Amino acid sequence: MTILTLLTDFGTEDEYVGVMKGIILSIAPDVRLVDLSHQVPPQDIRRAAFLLMNAVPYFPPDTVHLAVVDPGVGTERRPVAVRTPAGTFVGPDNGLFSWVLERVPEWTAVEIREPAYQLPLASSTFQGRDIFAPVAAHLAAGVPLEKLGPRVEDPVWLPPPRLEISDFAAEGEVLYADRFGNLVTSIGYLVRSEDTLALKSAFGSQAVLLVFPAGDAGVVVGNVQLRGIRRTYGEAAVGELLALVGSSGFLEIAVRQGSAAAALGAVPGTPVTLVFRRNRG
Amino acid sequence: MTILTLLTDFGTEDEYVGVMKGIILSIAPDVRLVDLSHQVPPQDIRRAAFLLMNAVPYFPPDTVHLAVVDPGVGTERRPVAVRTPAGTFVGPDNGLFSWVLERVPEWTAVEIREPAYQLPLASSTFQGRDIFAPVAAHLAAGVPLEKLGPRVEDPVWLPPPRLEISDFAAEGEVLYADRFGNLVTSIGYLVRSEDTLALKSAFGSQAVLLVFPAGDAGVVVGNVQLRGIRRTYGEAAVGELLALVGSSGFLEIAVRQGSAAAALGAVPGTPVTLVFRRNRG
Amino acid sequence: MTILTLLTDFGTEDEYVGVMKGIILSIAPDVRLVDLSHQVPPQDIRRAAFLLMNAVPYFPPDTVHLAVVDPGVGTERRPVAVRTPAGTFVGPDNGLFSWVLERVPEWTAVEIREPAYQLPLASSTFQGRDIFAPVAAHLAAGVPLEKLGPRVEDPVWLPPPRLEISDFAAEGEVLYADRFGNLVTSIGYLVRSEDTLALKSAFGSQAVLLVFPAGDAGVVVGNVQLRGIRRTYGEAAVGELLALVGSSGFLEIAVRQGSAAAALGAVPGTPVTLVFRRNRG
Repeated sequence: MTILTLLTDFGTEDEYVGVMKGIILSIAPDVRLVDLSHQVPPQDIRRAAFLLMNAVPYFPPDTVHLAVVDPGVGTERRPVAVRTPAGTFVGPDNGLFSWVLERVPEWTAVEIREPAYQLPLASSTFQGRDIFAPVAAHLAAGVPLEKLGPRVEDPVWLPPPRLEISDFAAEGEVLYADRFGNLVTSIGYLVRSEDTLALKSAFGSQAVLLVFPAGDAGVVVGNVQLRGIRRTYGEAAVGELLALVGSSGFLEIAVRQGSAAAALGAVPGTPVTLVFRRNRG
Repeated sequence: MTILTLLTDFGTEDEYVGVMKGIILSIAPDVRLVDLSHQVPPQDIRRAAFLLMNAVPYFPPDTVHLAVVDPGVGTERRPVAVRTPAGTFVGPDNGLFSWVLERVPEWTAVEIREPAYQLPLASSTFQGRDIFAPVAAHLAAGVPLEKLGPRVEDPVWLPPPRLEISDFAAEGEVLYADRFGNLVTSIGYLVRSEDTLALKSAFGSQAVLLVFPAGDAGVVVGNVQLRGIRRTYGEAAVGELLALVGSSGFLEIAVRQGSAAAALGAVPGTPVTLVFRRNRG
Repeated sequence: MTILTLLTDFGTEDEYVGVMKGIILSIAPDVRLVDLSHQVPPQDIRRAAFLLMNAVPYFPPDTVHLAVVDPGVGTERRPVAVRTPAGTFVGPDNGLFSWVLERVPEWTAVEIREPAYQLPLASSTFQGRDIFAPVAAHLAAGVPLEKLGPRVEDPVWLPPPRLEISDFAAEGEVLYADRFGNLVTSIGYLVRSEDTLALKSAFGSQAVLLVFPAGDAGVVVGNVQLRGIRRTYGEAAVGELLALVGSSGFLEIAVRQGSAAAALGAVPGTPVTLVFRRNRG
């Protein structure tokens, strides 16, 4: 049974998500539906692209990922489907998939045009229902990607979040606060080996950008300085601010059993600097 | 595998929805569960009835729709099950299903009485768990409707939302704001053909009520006047107010990439007027 | 098809829950996933333990319940799996399961150590993903509990909520307000038979603690006194405060079609007293 995931900014108050599932199960009754999130902040493509990049590796490669965060619905932007070795993706061509695509060795994208795989009367306001849900279901049911429409070689590409590396510092930004108030930053991803951290390129080739000792690195956010990159929340006292490597490999600022977002008043875009001493070769 | 949808005002904080699913899967292990919404405003029967009316057409006709928005739980109001060509419905007899029923050619309703299809000790406070979930599961598993109890010929009927049509105007109201702040109104449903809009009766016979040109129609909400009924959000500038036909065919007021609810301070019940010039025959 | 439930404080904004489901379905493709709640207040172990205790009886005994509310993630606290006649449980050893365990005649607990059933590189920050989700999936797929690690005889035990019984009163506390504003209290559970209520021990042996007439019992919360324990919301006038037995058998304070939490300004921990006259033998 193929898995089909859904990622939208539709919320769960209205019937929008349920309607998409009704359509999908009408076309592909055996598909397994998994909600990634429907709470993406309205029209926040970058948030959705980041979430998708972090979630995709945990699903089988034959999974179909349906993502609809679509401020340009009803305009000239193309509907697309993309096949990769990490999964198949369906949604608007607005950059939603570009950070996933940067991590895979190859991909094939098509513009969705063939009406046979869409609802008969496509609206201009709810293409999640009229185009994307039925197309994702047909792909999950085995329709070949090429049947959907012509190849797309130039999908919209989202620039990666800010990350500038100099000799002694990596400058990034807060991407968002998660439900616990942990501040997820653009500094990543970080891989720990013993007491050493390697900063690798998270968007693209995954080259090692630098290697440094975790213990005497520091993090500056607003007018607060944090010493060291901890392994876990438990290494801090309850209520203490700490920096650590989050579950997807990005630098996070947290308060043990509290909210770093509240403690620091930080918001998306707040600058974060990682200060380090390079390892000698 | 039969689909069983759930629509409640229970929220997702507590165990209530999960408990209903445990009961359903214990009775009908192969059923496919789909959440329509559990975020209906507490005890808002009209909101749930409207949501259900808009969602049902996208599900197969053998779907069982379980809906529990039930301010009268534990009182004399009857528990009912209704079979229609568009689906089977289970819930309290308080009008939840009447707008669905207005759209189908025929229906059969029964009062749920037979204890064999309910939990052994029905409470007076959580009949979603004790009556409606097990009954819906038994129906999905193939129990004939007639086994549940005696026929009901006079289910509670909900009056449709306000819509008054005169020679030059259709007067309705804001029903609710969706997650994006789009104001969904009672003026519908509207069907576009080229540059012409037909207003059809959404509650009942779907008769054509009037036909008018979309371009020089106007919408008045509060002290704001909007010119024309647009096809899509993209026809407005970012931040601009616009009127358009929403995904379920009802007139909507939106702000492109913004919130019309916030911009207008409109709430459920705020009057909305569609001003039009009738097409000459 | 085995059911696997999920209970967390992760919220549904981020990818955390979806990622766990991807892992679970990769290991056990046929498992049925049911969300109990992901809206547990962050790190509120007691709220989760109470929710779980109330939900478990409605699931088949071969269900695997995955619960991750884990303020001690990455510290010395053990990951555990527990098999009982009422279900199998996977999560941190912090008391989450103790109220379930008090209700079952026997249980077997093990510490999760065997790496073969975990993700290859376990992080210190997201063990829901790296340890608990894969272990729960392997259990659902039939891996014997004993394979996971050594027996645990002394899991962390949570003291039950406050309940003190004297000759004429049972003193407890507000546990939480549900979505409707109903105040769920620690006074339970209560079983009605005709006009008589029996108060049984909800945490442990289920012994009958006392028996009293429902009609002239009273409830005191803050400076409000309520007369009688009603059967249902419908016995009160709209807007009236009432006391009744909630759906899981605990005393609740409600306002018919309103919010008792708002009306009384009560919060978790607010004292609630049930005043009664014992039945003569």
